[in-house]
Amino acid sequence: MKRGQKKTDRAPYVIGMDLGGTKILAAVVDGDGRIKAEAKLKTRAGEGPGAVVQRMEEAARQAAQQARVKWSAVKGVGIGVPGPVDPEAGIVHHTPNLQGWEDVPLGPQLSKALGVPVYLENDVNLGTLGEHALGAGRGTRDMVGIFVGTGVGGGLILDGQLRQGFRQAAAEVGHMIVMAGGPVCGCGQRGCLEALASRTAMERDIRIGLAAGRESLIPKLAGKGPNSLTSGVLAKALRRKDPLVTEVVGRAQWYLGLMTGSIVNMIDPEMVVFGGGVVEALGDSFVAPIRVTARQHFIQRTGVESVRIVASQLGDHAAVLGAAVLVRQQT
Amino acid sequence: MKRGQKKTDRAPYVIGMDLGGTKILAAVVDGDGRIKAEAKLKTRAGEGPGAVVQRMEEAARQAAQQARVKWSAVKGVGIGVPGPVDPEAGIVHHTPNLQGWEDVPLGPQLSKALGVPVYLENDVNLGTLGEHALGAGRGTRDMVGIFVGTGVGGGLILDGQLRQGFRQAAAEVGHMIVMAGGPVCGCGQRGCLEALASRTAMERDIRIGLAAGRESLIPKLAGKGPNSLTSGVLAKALRRKDPLVTEVVGRAQWYLGLMTGSIVNMIDPEMVVFGGGVVEALGDSFVAPIRVTARQHFIQRTGVESVRIVASQLGDHAAVLGAAVLVRQQT
Repeated sequence: MKRGQKKTDRAPYVIGMDLGGTKILAAVVDGDGRIKAEAKLKTRAGEGPGAVVQRMEEAARQAAQQARVKWSAVKGVGIGVPGPVDPEAGIVHHTPNLQGWEDVPLGPQLSKALGVPVYLENDVNLGTLGEHALGAGRGTRDMVGIFVGTGVGGGLILDGQLRQGFRQAAAEVGHMIVMAGGPVCGCGQRGCLEALASRTAMERDIRIGLAAGRESLIPKLAGKGPNSLTSGVLAKALRRKDPLVTEVVGRAQWYLGLMTGSIVNMIDPEMVVFGGGVVEALGDSFVAPIRVTARQHFIQRTGVESVRIVASQLGDHAAVLGAAVLVRQQT
Repeated sequence: MKRGQKKTDRAPYVIGMDLGGTKILAAVVDGDGRIKAEAKLKTRAGEGPGAVVQRMEEAARQAAQQARVKWSAVKGVGIGVPGPVDPEAGIVHHTPNLQGWEDVPLGPQLSKALGVPVYLENDVNLGTLGEHALGAGRGTRDMVGIFVGTGVGGGLILDGQLRQGFRQAAAEVGHMIVMAGGPVCGCGQRGCLEALASRTAMERDIRIGLAAGRESLIPKLAGKGPNSLTSGVLAKALRRKDPLVTEVVGRAQWYLGLMTGSIVNMIDPEMVVFGGGVVEALGDSFVAPIRVTARQHFIQRTGVESVRIVASQLGDHAAVLGAAVLVRQQT
């Protein structure tokens, strides 16, 4: 501990990064978990892993420049990756959103380029770690993070530590089954939470409604493309009380509530934190009905209110802040 | 450790008890986790908690006599209770199978009667603890126990320790939802695993089939009463390839497999152990299809075979042995 402290004094900054399908986010984070400055670059995944790793280096150096932090004051870089990783070896196994990424040694490559240690972790695990250390979950011992966006991901904090699991595969909340025989999921199975409550699932159900002639503001609010039905568009439609969107989002909230109830019945944590693009756009009004449904399903009726079910406090920065926490834990 | 060891030498025996809706089981267990002798008495829950506590005392003393163990050589008693307990205060909150049990101070009462420390825990938690310490789960770090009988219960071992949870309510596997909108459960909610895969659920579905005129051996094999469709009867019907029973049990196995997949996707343990009356009667042939379905649903495809999904090794004695382990851990 003391040795670590000394090091911190000399190199008090870490860089947290979030490697997304469309953008790379890099943030310089100080010893108090505050973001000093950040840089954003397009991922351009189509150019292949090599080019993306170069742009990640660029984003990290740009963020340091923005923060007026000398590179020698950066003690390490943490990266949230949208898929399974081998944290020990620094390898990205594969990512559904970055085509061509198969067992890429991102950690060693970026560490060589930047001259500092680089640590990887799944982005939702880091989002959970960030919320636990610096956000909604501060001070809790056991916490579950559920992130609702294009997919549904999760993270699990037990005894204050991120749980990796026996095969580094814990907290895959999106692929827990909430409706046996339900709709086919991107993973190929049926009835996963992700197939019922992700933004993708909501978009599917809204388009089914539109195709059947349901009235809705969506054709006016959203463009025509396959990714035009963003979380922001959903938020606008809800504010205007669009009946189709209200119905579809309400159903997703019901399934999220059922699963939250199931997870609480299994893990019995102190807190469940909801984050991700949908939650960021819709805020606590998205979480409130989930809370009601979840609590209805707690089998232990003692202390129902004591289990907090809340929205993320770090929003879009949960993963970069979690990445910064990861670096501090490792060095 | 050394102090504990010394104590063990002087009083090397503990008594593990299982308080069931129909019978009280007491077993004298030595320092190696071996059962020296046991005693069984009827619960006669209708006579009220006071009479049941007296019979528990009798069962404990009978077991010691059977084992030719002086009472002074008994260092403590552990009890598995079919419902939620307060382990610290030794209170049984309530049990669905023992009418009139509301906040009964079983621990203090029995401790006073027997003159030794008494420890309580939920019976499925103790079954899981027993399998982990002395049965199928020996040597695992993280293990889930799932017990299929009249209901479906569970237990969770993380980092080698029984997980109690924030509200002492962890591992309520039977009330995780596997089919949103599914059949009504005893708990009042819909689609819980218990409503789809307990012996009670199987009995319901078999009776629905019979009422609709389905051919089956069940009317010959089982009596007419509400509890006549025992696990033993199910086993007999399966051995004779009864089509209705085969279909209904197969469906229960499917749901158990889905939930096991979900639990592995969340917890990522090394092992899932199946126990309880149904598993005891049907053995590994009951677990094999569950294993296949569960593995199909693992989202992490690396190391699928490394997650062991197995039948209990301790059978009916899982809870009493777990109760003995509990006493050794506490004293």
